[in-house]
Amino acid sequence: MAEKLTHLDEQGAARIVDIAGKDETVRRAVAGAELHASPAIVEAIFGGALKKGDAVAVARVAGIMAAKKTSELIPLCHPIPVTRITVDIEPVAAPGIIAIRATVETVGRTGVEMEALTAASVTALTLYDMAKALDKSMTITDLRLLSKSGGKSGDFTRQEP
Amino acid sequence: MAEKLTHLDEQGAARIVDIAGKDETVRRAVAGAELHASPAIVEAIFGGALKKGDAVAVARVAGIMAAKKTSELIPLCHPIPVTRITVDIEPVAAPGIIAIRATVETVGRTGVEMEALTAASVTALTLYDMAKALDKSMTITDLRLLSKSGGKSGDFTRQEP
Amino acid sequence: MAEKLTHLDEQGAARIVDIAGKDETVRRAVAGAELHASPAIVEAIFGGALKKGDAVAVARVAGIMAAKKTSELIPLCHPIPVTRITVDIEPVAAPGIIAIRATVETVGRTGVEMEALTAASVTALTLYDMAKALDKSMTITDLRLLSKSGGKSGDFTRQEP
Amino acid sequence: MAEKLTHLDEQGAARIVDIAGKDETVRRAVAGAELHASPAIVEAIFGGALKKGDAVAVARVAGIMAAKKTSELIPLCHPIPVTRITVDIEPVAAPGIIAIRATVETVGRTGVEMEALTAASVTALTLYDMAKALDKSMTITDLRLLSKSGGKSGDFTRQEP
Amino acid sequence: MAEKLTHLDEQGAARIVDIAGKDETVRRAVAGAELHASPAIVEAIFGGALKKGDAVAVARVAGIMAAKKTSELIPLCHPIPVTRITVDIEPVAAPGIIAIRATVETVGRTGVEMEALTAASVTALTLYDMAKALDKSMTITDLRLLSKSGGKSGDFTRQEP
Amino acid sequence: MAEKLTHLDEQGAARIVDIAGKDETVRRAVAGAELHASPAIVEAIFGGALKKGDAVAVARVAGIMAAKKTSELIPLCHPIPVTRITVDIEPVAAPGIIAIRATVETVGRTGVEMEALTAASVTALTLYDMAKALDKSMTITDLRLLSKSGGKSGDFTRQEP
Repeated sequence: MAEKLTHLDEQGAARIVDIAGKDETVRRAVAGAELHASPAIVEAIFGGALKKGDAVAVARVAGIMAAKKTSELIPLCHPIPVTRITVDIEPVAAPGIIAIRATVETVGRTGVEMEALTAASVTALTLYDMAKALDKSMTITDLRLLSKSGGKSGDFTRQEP
Repeated sequence: MAEKLTHLDEQGAARIVDIAGKDETVRRAVAGAELHASPAIVEAIFGGALKKGDAVAVARVAGIMAAKKTSELIPLCHPIPVTRITVDIEPVAAPGIIAIRATVETVGRTGVEMEALTAASVTALTLYDMAKALDKSMTITDLRLLSKSGGKSGDFTRQEP
Repeated sequence: MAEKLTHLDEQGAARIVDIAGKDETVRRAVAGAELHASPAIVEAIFGGALKKGDAVAVARVAGIMAAKKTSELIPLCHPIPVTRITVDIEPVAAPGIIAIRATVETVGRTGVEMEALTAASVTALTLYDMAKALDKSMTITDLRLLSKSGGKSGDFTRQEP
Repeated sequence: MAEKLTHLDEQGAARIVDIAGKDETVRRAVAGAELHASPAIVEAIFGGALKKGDAVAVARVAGIMAAKKTSELIPLCHPIPVTRITVDIEPVAAPGIIAIRATVETVGRTGVEMEALTAASVTALTLYDMAKALDKSMTITDLRLLSKSGGKSGDFTRQEP
Repeated sequence: MAEKLTHLDEQGAARIVDIAGKDETVRRAVAGAELHASPAIVEAIFGGALKKGDAVAVARVAGIMAAKKTSELIPLCHPIPVTRITVDIEPVAAPGIIAIRATVETVGRTGVEMEALTAASVTALTLYDMAKALDKSMTITDLRLLSKSGGKSGDFTRQEP
Repeated sequence: MAEKLTHLDEQGAARIVDIAGKDETVRRAVAGAELHASPAIVEAIFGGALKKGDAVAVARVAGIMAAKKTSELIPLCHPIPVTRITVDIEPVAAPGIIAIRATVETVGRTGVEMEALTAASVTALTLYDMAKALDKSMTITDLRLLSKSGGKSGDFTRQEP
């Protein structure tokens, strides 16, 4: 038997599903993404020993603000009053890769997976924007939900290799 | 010599760079992304022979509307009056993968790479949102600029394997 | 004695009225609108037997997203975290007329009448937009509240002929 | 032969159509709407001889600001830098009816019909919002394009009875 | 020992701080600002004995709507469902000065100081905008929090001379 | 003879004034503001010799993004495609004072004074927000236009003491 998208009704019409009957509980989601650039770009973004610019802060703020805009961007998302947002941006051991991790929490009737994914995505896009004059072939990859907790559907932790 | 981000000034302060002196020309950008899901989800999104729901249209509209919001999301982007936006969403031969392609055009003083990337990203996130009750481990990958044309910096076509 | 608008104070100054003392209860509103077009346009929007495009889905998504923007559009509306939105778009028996019905629910301190009316209005405007190259003389009419429930002011059901 | 919506491509996919090749010319659109209320509500909105509140100004500002948001609300609208917006709100001879007229102009590549219709619609909805505690059965009718000029498709003036 | 900004973590990274554990209580904030103009401008804004325009109402609506946009403007603010907003605009005894006072309330987990300050600021800027063709040297000054109440950090009342 | 606000018509109705006939020229505006805090807060914001956080970058990004939102905030402002935005934030010689300066440019039919003032205002409010847990009695003052150039009304440079 075929699986069905919850966001469409029996006739296939899109809708924002009813959550009035769900409990207001603390819900958390963590999402990640990677920007594959080059060592020179990672250096340009994070700066060297002596001078550091706004680049990382700009990308972080962009992600935080985007999380608050999620229900304006994703048509069938409920508006959610988030209670906490953090965005981490770090170079990883593999040269030329920047790892992004966004954590969002709410006390509400539905989860914040899309808020965390939107934050990670816009953070990565903002880094791309600032560095694109140096290299247009950067790639954003592994935009994914790392974990979620809270709510009746149970906790989720992504199995990473 | 180290490369420098154009979006930061000599002191590292973020800014929206001056484009007043650039020509108003037709500029185009094409961006792509992939959603790695499962064959069952691809089937749920695209529907079978007899019935088709709103899923693909919802994701396409989300991408189109997001392209128009780019300068609200990416802090250092100029506001750009886009003149054309299309978003294609197709299952690809490899089972369980959906390919997204967004094309944006403007007649303006700067390019629309970020608009195309934002459209592709939000289209993919919207598909994720509609299917996440079935599978939270879907991944968005290969969010990348495929080509751009117009403007003084010259044309760009990504070399894909 | 003259009636007075609740949204203005004694001096006539506009304000967002105090709802802190009202109970958080489930509230629902249903609004309707009609687009008077022509049989050819209704056919163009809903498609024929063999092919169906995005038109109805685009209008539905527009209505759903507009409902979430209501407090940005209507100056004295409270921001409300809606818990459910549906938009129905159907041709009616009379040839050339499309009926729109929007249902919005919340668990909150005030009603969602304006959210339902805004959704119906923007759904109709979006249909108009897509068909206006064929006919600019279409009219949107009967934009009205059909019913509301929840809250201390009691239920309302419009008496339709 | 069936007519076709310009906003959908051959496969029925929604898109923002290409306007890069169109000329930048002065374009104007005028839209109207009516709010059918009651004499008491018209009196409450427009005030009596001695005192006048913010009601009409609030509705006018709402319409003006909504016109600027049109491309955020109507998914397939191009963003347009409007150069003029006016909104008139007047009681009409028939008791209990308020007539709204919105005029929008731009110097651009496409028309501002949707901007004028959106302004008229949100103006009427804002009046409804301020008066709805007195009467929920008010109706918005005759939301329609009165005229447009500018652009290659020629001028349009609605034939009113 | 140096004081530390609560909105930055130990590494100096910006974040939206966790408020999930705080109680939902009634919170109120009052902010003020002054526009220093000239007697002629104050007259132009408030009008004379016989005719009064929309100026004050437009500025008031702008402030009210801006309060609802606070979390979109101030990056690290939580989104807050406000339950009441009022904006007062009055000429003061000193000739050429207009005093603005904004009051915002919510039932929520954090205060509305920024909402009140944003409302006062945008109200003043809107007055400036409408009068700037007459005088560009007007100044906005004394934008400040007058009082707040509710929440665990205690009440605050500004000591004014 | 009384002066008149250009943004109101003969009947006092607010409007967005017609700029279709004005030339598209390079226009620039510079605005300033001051945040009066305390030496401890200035130290907390700008950091010491060894560690620097995101505070200044966050405030700068907020100001830049707010400039792009000006026509959404100030009801009678035209939407303007800005071509350059910079925001400077510096401690001044007088202890406990932070000076903000915002520069905005466009190639357009009307000036960007309100964009520069909005940027300066939101930058100051964002600094206030981040430091308000330390001191709620900070004041924003001297929000003013420093200069403008371009356009038919001529250049303006504020006479400062």
